[in-house]
Amino acid sequence: MQENVLLVKETLFEKIAFNIQRLIEQEVLKTGDKMPSVRTLSREQKISMSTVFQAYYLLEKKGLIEARPRSGYYVRKPYKRVAAQPAATTTWKMPINVRVDSLVSDFVKTTHKGTFIDLTIAGPSIEMLPVAKLNKSIQAVLRTNKGNSFQYEFPPGNENLLRQIARLSLNWQGSLSPDEIIITNGCLEAVNLCLRAVANQGDTIAIESPTYYGVLQTIESLGMKVLEIATHPEKGIDLDELEKALGKTKIAACLFTLNFNNPLGSCTSDVDKERLVKLLAKRQIPLIEDDILGDLYFGKNRPKNAKTFDKEGLVLLCSSFSKTIAPGMRVGWTAPGRYKEKVERLKFMTNIAAPSLMQQAVAHFLENGRYNNHLKGLRLTYHIQMRKYREAIFRYFPTGTKVTDPHGGHVLWIELPPNLDAVELQRKSIENGVAILPGSIFSAQKRHQHFVRIGCCYPFDQQVEHAIEVVGNLANEMM
Amino acid sequence: MQENVLLVKETLFEKIAFNIQRLIEQEVLKTGDKMPSVRTLSREQKISMSTVFQAYYLLEKKGLIEARPRSGYYVRKPYKRVAAQPAATTTWKMPINVRVDSLVSDFVKTTHKGTFIDLTIAGPSIEMLPVAKLNKSIQAVLRTNKGNSFQYEFPPGNENLLRQIARLSLNWQGSLSPDEIIITNGCLEAVNLCLRAVANQGDTIAIESPTYYGVLQTIESLGMKVLEIATHPEKGIDLDELEKALGKTKIAACLFTLNFNNPLGSCTSDVDKERLVKLLAKRQIPLIEDDILGDLYFGKNRPKNAKTFDKEGLVLLCSSFSKTIAPGMRVGWTAPGRYKEKVERLKFMTNIAAPSLMQQAVAHFLENGRYNNHLKGLRLTYHIQMRKYREAIFRYFPTGTKVTDPHGGHVLWIELPPNLDAVELQRKSIENGVAILPGSIFSAQKRHQHFVRIGCCYPFDQQVEHAIEVVGNLANEMM
Repeated sequence: MQENVLLVKETLFEKIAFNIQRLIEQEVLKTGDKMPSVRTLSREQKISMSTVFQAYYLLEKKGLIEARPRSGYYVRKPYKRVAAQPAATTTWKMPINVRVDSLVSDFVKTTHKGTFIDLTIAGPSIEMLPVAKLNKSIQAVLRTNKGNSFQYEFPPGNENLLRQIARLSLNWQGSLSPDEIIITNGCLEAVNLCLRAVANQGDTIAIESPTYYGVLQTIESLGMKVLEIATHPEKGIDLDELEKALGKTKIAACLFTLNFNNPLGSCTSDVDKERLVKLLAKRQIPLIEDDILGDLYFGKNRPKNAKTFDKEGLVLLCSSFSKTIAPGMRVGWTAPGRYKEKVERLKFMTNIAAPSLMQQAVAHFLENGRYNNHLKGLRLTYHIQMRKYREAIFRYFPTGTKVTDPHGGHVLWIELPPNLDAVELQRKSIENGVAILPGSIFSAQKRHQHFVRIGCCYPFDQQVEHAIEVVGNLANEMM
Repeated sequence: MQENVLLVKETLFEKIAFNIQRLIEQEVLKTGDKMPSVRTLSREQKISMSTVFQAYYLLEKKGLIEARPRSGYYVRKPYKRVAAQPAATTTWKMPINVRVDSLVSDFVKTTHKGTFIDLTIAGPSIEMLPVAKLNKSIQAVLRTNKGNSFQYEFPPGNENLLRQIARLSLNWQGSLSPDEIIITNGCLEAVNLCLRAVANQGDTIAIESPTYYGVLQTIESLGMKVLEIATHPEKGIDLDELEKALGKTKIAACLFTLNFNNPLGSCTSDVDKERLVKLLAKRQIPLIEDDILGDLYFGKNRPKNAKTFDKEGLVLLCSSFSKTIAPGMRVGWTAPGRYKEKVERLKFMTNIAAPSLMQQAVAHFLENGRYNNHLKGLRLTYHIQMRKYREAIFRYFPTGTKVTDPHGGHVLWIELPPNLDAVELQRKSIENGVAILPGSIFSAQKRHQHFVRIGCCYPFDQQVEHAIEVVGNLANEMM
């Protein structure tokens, strides 16, 4: 991470790198093309050679260009075009009760205790956590607050933390005020409370197909039904399909992850987000927006939220710091619009308050500008890591395998050849010391049976490459 | 607290003090009786004079004896006999939906922000928290665990904490094993998860009348009904009444606080606990046992739990360290018997896990024997404090006021003369800078309208005495 910390101070070379990246993506610069020499670019752009070096170094880390000894830099083979993306999904015919395999939580538990190479993880690995800085924040808070870190911080939560989160809303061009926000124990609790605020047992929730299994389990535990809506692997939720479904079925609420959907990695465009908000406002249907991965974008700017376009308080935005600062601190939040009072009461009734020290420490961390710096490094790490995982999957998995190419987040959604059973592949992989998640747990209908989700959260090393090779070989044997 | 720390090393003088206390309670030693001189008792009991002094000092602090200058120790006027206890309550005719005033949570929030003298608090004041030792535990854990304090501790929870809680079960003559326990975000979350594990929306839960408003709100939020069962201010739940109700009404589960019920302070005898467990086992009805105050007993031994007698896994024991170590850490737990798997899944679906550092720090605190020492001081403090609060209430409140005399916990339940409206008294008190809780929020039927709950959690000082005087004067004016 050290080098990332150095990089974040500058932005000029990043700008240059992004411009070059765009040229490569638009195929102005094609595979095998020689890049301008460092000296040439320096002279043409009137920038220092060291800036060019830094830009090329960044592009190399991202896997876009490669240095050839005594020859210069060349555009690499772009995996994106070679490797097809999974197909779009379809909308299910009717709402159904959720019965996600009870093995999910057992499975998560098992793999976290065993000696597996665990490719199920979708959260920062220990190397990515800002441990030293979090320790400092905890120490500072304990010193300043005396015993107040051990007394309650009642809902809506620690005032400083509410202020810091409101400040962060500028990043997605929102303008939250602190009194719109409630602190929760992680994002899933926020989603849980919002679901309870807008829907009752037996009501139908529209979700994306596929959807994060934790959300499905939460809906299951609340006795609600789901209607799975069609998605596209890059554009996310299919709004035409959603509109059709809303005409046919009584939907109590929508629950979507518009930015870097887990497992799909898709990101809904700002135009579509605005259309979605209008579409739902017309029908007065609340939207629970799970934005837990929104800060982990690989592009130049953070994508907006649906909440950015919300004029009626119908969007209940949920997020947390679990994917960015520390999963184990369990600090999440929601800005539930017109449902704020109800959600706040539900929070109190569920477990009174979130732990005070955790709230205070995260507030201190944010307040001291540690977050944005940390994020910058984290995003680059994930971007690079994901590219490497993706390449390895293409190297070892059967011909015909398709992989998503997300512009943010940290998971890959893999479509195996259609005859392959992912649950069987999961079973065999575990026997061989590697844990993966089968696609069927991301659907109430147990669809996506030949899909696999792989988290790109461990630093890509020989062990990870070996793990992917093991799963790939098993898949090949099963063909 | 310093003197308590000194006291805990010895037990001989405590034994002697308890024996004398029993003699006073049995009226062998009557009000105004002169106590044997220190010299005499020392000679008769063959103990050192310093031990006698310590015993007398303890009895004096408990308000049982008083020193008269140049005369010796005398048995004090026993408030217990002068002040009548509130009457037993009755069972309600049928199950009803819960609609606790939404003002409860708002009210709690308001008072915690204002400059009130807050007599609503039922939790340790900051002076009672082992802040320095908790800080040490946190430091130690951060040092040892490195980043692992920021990663997940998945349900059932931190292994060391599970072991420590299992060890504590010896205190109530239970024999929990670590694998029976699940860590939660406080006791209310434990109760919430257990309710969801054993009952559905629309089902009826048998509760005590009165019952802690947080529990009522939780039941309300889950859409369940309650049947309020008769209680006695000392013996707690009326088992004959419960048995009758079980014959008439379909009860999905019972939810009782058998040790130092909040607000009643009652403690169900071990004989009755065993009878209760058998009664429910015969009908296969689960019992959610909220034991959050069980460790705060004033007598010689900790009362047992219903769980102590549970042979069929039908008792779901819930507790936390919020009332003893630190409310703001939100570390609770449940031992849900045969419902363990279901509760564990619900925990995962609700908010994935409890914060890791909080679990690890409490485990460290318990592991280092800090808990029992801390508890000993805390119990004495509460015992003394409650006696002083009680005396002040009798000093300032209208004639005819009745007050409970709990053998543990930290709240008093006050029955005002019947024509007094407690909500009105609450309103006036707040205007005069003192916060109290009206009895009606402890009932789904809004019964107990001339009752008030007062927490004895601040050290009893002039300010607290003044606050009680203010409320007492207002009550007198309203007569």
